[in-house]
Amino acid sequence: MTINFLQVIDILGTAAFAVSGARSAMQKRLDVFGVVAISFATAIGGGTLRDILIGSTPVAWLRNETTVLVILISVIATLFFDSSSRYPKTLFLFDSLGLGLFTLVGIEKGIAAEFSPGICLALGTITACFGGVIRDVLLNNVPVIFRKEIYASACFTGGLLYYFLHYFSVYETLAQIVCIASIVCIRVFAVRYHLSLPSFYKQEK
Amino acid sequence: MTINFLQVIDILGTAAFAVSGARSAMQKRLDVFGVVAISFATAIGGGTLRDILIGSTPVAWLRNETTVLVILISVIATLFFDSSSRYPKTLFLFDSLGLGLFTLVGIEKGIAAEFSPGICLALGTITACFGGVIRDVLLNNVPVIFRKEIYASACFTGGLLYYFLHYFSVYETLAQIVCIASIVCIRVFAVRYHLSLPSFYKQEK
Amino acid sequence: MTINFLQVIDILGTAAFAVSGARSAMQKRLDVFGVVAISFATAIGGGTLRDILIGSTPVAWLRNETTVLVILISVIATLFFDSSSRYPKTLFLFDSLGLGLFTLVGIEKGIAAEFSPGICLALGTITACFGGVIRDVLLNNVPVIFRKEIYASACFTGGLLYYFLHYFSVYETLAQIVCIASIVCIRVFAVRYHLSLPSFYKQEK
Repeated sequence: MTINFLQVIDILGTAAFAVSGARSAMQKRLDVFGVVAISFATAIGGGTLRDILIGSTPVAWLRNETTVLVILISVIATLFFDSSSRYPKTLFLFDSLGLGLFTLVGIEKGIAAEFSPGICLALGTITACFGGVIRDVLLNNVPVIFRKEIYASACFTGGLLYYFLHYFSVYETLAQIVCIASIVCIRVFAVRYHLSLPSFYKQEK
Repeated sequence: MTINFLQVIDILGTAAFAVSGARSAMQKRLDVFGVVAISFATAIGGGTLRDILIGSTPVAWLRNETTVLVILISVIATLFFDSSSRYPKTLFLFDSLGLGLFTLVGIEKGIAAEFSPGICLALGTITACFGGVIRDVLLNNVPVIFRKEIYASACFTGGLLYYFLHYFSVYETLAQIVCIASIVCIRVFAVRYHLSLPSFYKQEK
Repeated sequence: MTINFLQVIDILGTAAFAVSGARSAMQKRLDVFGVVAISFATAIGGGTLRDILIGSTPVAWLRNETTVLVILISVIATLFFDSSSRYPKTLFLFDSLGLGLFTLVGIEKGIAAEFSPGICLALGTITACFGGVIRDVLLNNVPVIFRKEIYASACFTGGLLYYFLHYFSVYETLAQIVCIASIVCIRVFAVRYHLSLPSFYKQEK
């Protein structure tokens, strides 16, 4: 049951991030190969960095044809069926979902490898956020998650919640749903009410 | 015989990419260390990323003094004997050769590690193209191969050809030559006739 | 004795680089998460890249709570107690110290893994310099160490000195102090007298 639930998590998160990457690449008007490459980097970048850091190689997607297929289908769907008028809302919803899903997967891998709590939370945040960081670096932007909005902090908070529920042996699937839901809620709430992290710069530019 | 042929492949490809990296760095007027660093990153970046992804560490060049020497000699030769008037043609020829050679090496490593066909082709393309991606990221450009021209698609097509010849047990050295030659030909043809991947953007910017 | 000395080296170098990263991120006015992320990347980036290249995974900081704590404390201290009027001098001193310390650690790891002398020096330089390269790439700048100033060349020279002292069995702690001191001296001297690597471009832009 848990394994199947995690597999669905992986497919949904991968598709969500692939679409987000493809859309960003299309905004910069890259060619087909560029869109596919950025889409892959966004979808698997966080998990790949996590696998490399913890030494779990070959990294997961090399042996996982499902992931590769999901990304290719997502890219093709984005290229053909993307209506730019619905852009911001769709992108945002995809993004929030992927964010929650990937944070969970990262923390679970950290717990399985018996890292300390802080490192598990960091691995969850890296899994969720660094696909987007790699996307922004490849597209020659300062990563958006470093600049504004509640994004990585949503992952961190949701991850912390999951870690406590897991630690106190709450029923696993419930803890996983709470983790993902809390991250999506924080994201939606933050964007809806234009919340951002407190600024520590005296004068605004 | 095959081993020697692959070694020559490796040296030629490494030199070609080192020169390409050094020239790009000199265009941005980096200092000597910057030129050496970009040259190394361009020459070994793709293979290093491939080795890290498949978990073949320490990565190849750490144990391979030939590679390091070839890059250093290429950088020095570029710094001293580079005549900027011959720039575009030389750079292009070096680049195409390296492209074909590295795609082959990447696919062969993928086959040796028994990855599925699609992953082998991806590893070939990564080996050939990601040195250039790392070079462009370090030089603060959007990677040129994501934006225009037949480049990664040449690798992919030549790689596909090699994979089929290899699968049907064609004589190995012949398959290798066909792979490299087809990639070089596609590149030359594409640049000569200004071909690029079809655009899917309705209005051009 | 040697182990304790190396641990102190690691803590001081980590703190120095974390402060340097946090300051650079604050100059670009990133939010709190961005400052923490850039600070981590600067402090552990070089060592992480070295560990990944030589296949020493999980990379060191995942099992090292001291490193994580030192970086967090450095970031918080920088955020709260940073007086921008004292900026350049403090940053420069922190940076030079970290530079010397990390070069030494990198070379020692290379020697322990029995790489050839040139590779050991490269690993030392990568450990010292690539945190800064990753910082600059994430902040969307051409890495400063590729463009100007005696920086990587100081690491290389100090590293060479250490390698010779080590090879001729000079008392270990003395060799370590000479390595770090020489790198700091070269940096201070170079900046004080505005030295840079000789230019090989005929006309200046």
